[in-house]
Amino acid sequence: MRTISILGATGSVGASTLDLIRRNRDEWRIVALTANCNVTQLAALAREFGAEIAVVGDETCLAELRMALAGTGIEAAAGAKALCEAAARPVDLTVAAIVGCAGLAPTMAAIEQGGTIALANKEALVSAGDVMTAAVRANGATLLPVDSEHNAIFQCLQANDIADVRWITLTASGGPFRTWSAERIAAATPAQAVAHPNWDMGAKISVDSATMMNKGLEFIEAYHLFPVGLDALRIVVHPQSVVHSMVEYRDGSTLAQLGPPDMRVPVASCLAWPKRMETPCQALDLAAIGELSFFAPDENLFPATRLARDAAHAGGAAPAVLNAANEVAVAAFLAGKIGFTKIAVIVEQALNRDIGVAPASLEEVLAVDRLARLRANEVLESC
Amino acid sequence: MRTISILGATGSVGASTLDLIRRNRDEWRIVALTANCNVTQLAALAREFGAEIAVVGDETCLAELRMALAGTGIEAAAGAKALCEAAARPVDLTVAAIVGCAGLAPTMAAIEQGGTIALANKEALVSAGDVMTAAVRANGATLLPVDSEHNAIFQCLQANDIADVRWITLTASGGPFRTWSAERIAAATPAQAVAHPNWDMGAKISVDSATMMNKGLEFIEAYHLFPVGLDALRIVVHPQSVVHSMVEYRDGSTLAQLGPPDMRVPVASCLAWPKRMETPCQALDLAAIGELSFFAPDENLFPATRLARDAAHAGGAAPAVLNAANEVAVAAFLAGKIGFTKIAVIVEQALNRDIGVAPASLEEVLAVDRLARLRANEVLESC
Repeated sequence: MRTISILGATGSVGASTLDLIRRNRDEWRIVALTANCNVTQLAALAREFGAEIAVVGDETCLAELRMALAGTGIEAAAGAKALCEAAARPVDLTVAAIVGCAGLAPTMAAIEQGGTIALANKEALVSAGDVMTAAVRANGATLLPVDSEHNAIFQCLQANDIADVRWITLTASGGPFRTWSAERIAAATPAQAVAHPNWDMGAKISVDSATMMNKGLEFIEAYHLFPVGLDALRIVVHPQSVVHSMVEYRDGSTLAQLGPPDMRVPVASCLAWPKRMETPCQALDLAAIGELSFFAPDENLFPATRLARDAAHAGGAAPAVLNAANEVAVAAFLAGKIGFTKIAVIVEQALNRDIGVAPASLEEVLAVDRLARLRANEVLESC
Repeated sequence: MRTISILGATGSVGASTLDLIRRNRDEWRIVALTANCNVTQLAALAREFGAEIAVVGDETCLAELRMALAGTGIEAAAGAKALCEAAARPVDLTVAAIVGCAGLAPTMAAIEQGGTIALANKEALVSAGDVMTAAVRANGATLLPVDSEHNAIFQCLQANDIADVRWITLTASGGPFRTWSAERIAAATPAQAVAHPNWDMGAKISVDSATMMNKGLEFIEAYHLFPVGLDALRIVVHPQSVVHSMVEYRDGSTLAQLGPPDMRVPVASCLAWPKRMETPCQALDLAAIGELSFFAPDENLFPATRLARDAAHAGGAAPAVLNAANEVAVAAFLAGKIGFTKIAVIVEQALNRDIGVAPASLEEVLAVDRLARLRANEVLESC
């Protein structure tokens, strides 16, 4: 029996993880489940799985959580500090699936206890890349990527030497606006942006898919996870989202991982690694799918991948600024405050205001993140 | 420095192997090079690479070979027995690339010396599957598949447990007649059948691609190389020949190997295994390729895969009969004696004449093969 904590248990990655654990109940004991503010669902999951502790990020929800768990013996806690304390409890596997930079401190706490971290929180790795990878090394932790693209790359690298890699190619669906005109994209609504053609995901990542910033963040994430250098990383648009990513070796062999658009596939890969487990995911029928297509990204219509690549090349605070500005801009877009194409404009303007410091600790990353959000809000106001 | 022998040095796999060795001359010492009757090229290669021995299958060529190698100190030999003796010389790696059942005895001799065998001679494994895999086990030899499809599967299985495999999918180009009508296929000429759309190969294997018997033989080859059972093996038509084959695991992950239609890629995989070596093969540019398509095989127009699957299910002598009858029929087609669609008819009729014995040794396989050729010739005469 292995122990597991799920940071972000009520999101889509959390749901995929719990679906698989539900099918293999005798193999797992759940230590911590966390959520931002969805108390009802968090309490129901904590009860169902007999968690040791349930934590909400939003402190105003604590009383409600305590009530929902009354009589169960399950601990209830709330707030940023409680999230980190729960994440620090020793477990075999932590699923780090909090969305955005909010997941950074809990993920770092999980890394510091030295177990295996299934990382779905790409923003944390983008903002704190060097700090986080240094902590992984220092604490003897193991990072397993949950993102379907990075999980694909991770699978394609098994039994191979990373020194033999010629190219790593991230595939991108191109999002819901791939075939739209510039005019139509400029007028896109939040509802249109959230309607992803292939994946059923949360609002923030769906908007990131529509701007292609999701791929930009994944580009930086890949840079930290797979040390092949920025010049060996590429992006190709693949609307069917069947090929999740690829690794080309110096002998001319390319290995690719393919599968249905079901997060249970990469989550299962992390849960069972280095073995494999049964999932109910549908088998791949390429004859039924018929056609897989591939295009070069259009960085005029979708500048986010260019911004992310530039930020990765610049290094220092730039990736944290990119991510913070993007989070601010996406929230403003979802709130109806700015148009769709303004998201990239705000990110670019925020990147142009150089913060000029390379964050060297979690605290510095968080300070850079706060500063970048203020800058992004200033840019936003002036838009 | 590693030692290598190449059985079938003047064919396309032999040429790919020697091209790679030529780029890494200080890493390899060549023991034996063999050919059927191309004395000029064999002697030139033996001289260039300083082989220990050169052998021609055709005994009438011995005098010419001796003359071509005079004064070099390279041994010259000829005939079936000499091929086996040369193959039996201990080496680190044997490339078994003789086409057809003619390669069976030399390949078995190489297996019996217990080294690593890079197997390109699919017909040998089809005819002598159980006998050959038993010899591999008994002699502690290692089989590495050279066929691009099986090499792809082999790569996709690394670091995985074959018990976790749900499906192995062989891709097939569909050959030059994939989009032709039944009438046009019936009138196809040898020149049309040999003109493969993607791969530059020998005449026999090109015709096998046109009939889809190549995929049928590969189906049986895969059955022997990868013990997942016949019901877990599938074929999908993929005209671009970019995805060389795939393995789907029980968690829903499919791993695929992709690459250019260049035999140096799988050969390099075998030469460097379990590492990788540099090749000059072109990088994969999927955005430039644009589209990969997949179809279910049409076994009415191309019955060969059905015949091969039935032969594999029947077991015993059936695969050897299938292969022998196919070799006879393809030779008759190339000689202009029969029409294209008669190839499958002859194979099917030969299979219907049950030989009723499961060959249990190399000698019995060869006897079954001889008998099957006689039967196939009888069928051929009555066509």
